[in-house]
Amino acid sequence: MALPLDPRPARSRGRRRAGEDTRGALIAAAREAFAEHGYDGATVRGIAARAGVDAAMVNHWFGGKEALFTAVLDLPLDPAQVLPELLEGDPAGIGERVVRRFLGIWDATGGVPLAAVIRSVAGHEAAARMLREFVTRVLLVRLAAVAPDRAELRATLVGSQLIGLGMARYVVRIEPLASASVDEVVAAVAPTVQRYLTGPLDAPAAGA
Amino acid sequence: MALPLDPRPARSRGRRRAGEDTRGALIAAAREAFAEHGYDGATVRGIAARAGVDAAMVNHWFGGKEALFTAVLDLPLDPAQVLPELLEGDPAGIGERVVRRFLGIWDATGGVPLAAVIRSVAGHEAAARMLREFVTRVLLVRLAAVAPDRAELRATLVGSQLIGLGMARYVVRIEPLASASVDEVVAAVAPTVQRYLTGPLDAPAAGA
Repeated sequence: MALPLDPRPARSRGRRRAGEDTRGALIAAAREAFAEHGYDGATVRGIAARAGVDAAMVNHWFGGKEALFTAVLDLPLDPAQVLPELLEGDPAGIGERVVRRFLGIWDATGGVPLAAVIRSVAGHEAAARMLREFVTRVLLVRLAAVAPDRAELRATLVGSQLIGLGMARYVVRIEPLASASVDEVVAAVAPTVQRYLTGPLDAPAAGA
Repeated sequence: MALPLDPRPARSRGRRRAGEDTRGALIAAAREAFAEHGYDGATVRGIAARAGVDAAMVNHWFGGKEALFTAVLDLPLDPAQVLPELLEGDPAGIGERVVRRFLGIWDATGGVPLAAVIRSVAGHEAAARMLREFVTRVLLVRLAAVAPDRAELRATLVGSQLIGLGMARYVVRIEPLASASVDEVVAAVAPTVQRYLTGPLDAPAAGA
């Protein structure tokens, strides 16, 4: 038997709750909806109904489904804001911009929220599914703008390097990578991201 | 109330237990010892004493501390065996050998044990410390053989790409990377590993 999660007295459906209350109710409802239906399947309207608020509150508090998802995952960035910045400018510099921005975000938080996301994804199929869909639908579509071909494979290769960099630098904290300067890491990793996005994917390995 | 795990009649401490029993007792004792003292601090002698068996049993059952550690982490590989294979042969092909071997190991297991390791490392500082020390002391020392300079940074960069590849392909299972053929992934990722190990680490990013 399913019980309603909200223990408060019934009130009219769709009525606004005040301030942070509404925001928190939307995050809780979104967490359930994304887990049940995945990123694609969950709708703004359905999440708002589950939270007992008007659907306009999602835009008011979060700006949309993507930002609501980043709030659920507790990510310290909004891809809808970050991605256009990365994609502007010289395509030959996108690798550097991506790595520098990635380090800027996670160096600032000390990696604690990144460890939480990784733990969640490694432990729960629902979280893995959410992240998979989010990465595919939200990030890939935009990164594809600079890729000459095989855009989806390229974007997932970039993802693999960034998540691994995050694991090594912030979660496992392997030295000297954990303490290396931003410039040092950018110099080493940016060419990888650049090649994954715009270079040849099947070149023979370069020798020593 | 704690019950003895061995249902057979009590016998003298330090005496060998039969077969798998000894192996299991060593793994349990090692798990505790590595968590308490780290990879470096835990000794073969101390682990054996904790398990109530002779120290020679560690070599008999595992071949040494490294292999005992991989058994504790439930890793489907023994770095002491794998690394020499990778390091033999043309240095210009080491990137391909590393990536191909990595995929061979984890494709075979479906990535379930990898997810367990990642979950453990992301959730427990003791596990992160163990892995950090293990990677530093066991893997780095050997990979350094092919690196022209900055061997430790190079090895951790390789680690970052491999752990991220493992996350993306086996844990989050982002397509098309999750289903890409071994040859396709090797072609894309081997040049990264090759450059991290033997190439320039501060080259300007290659353009489109």
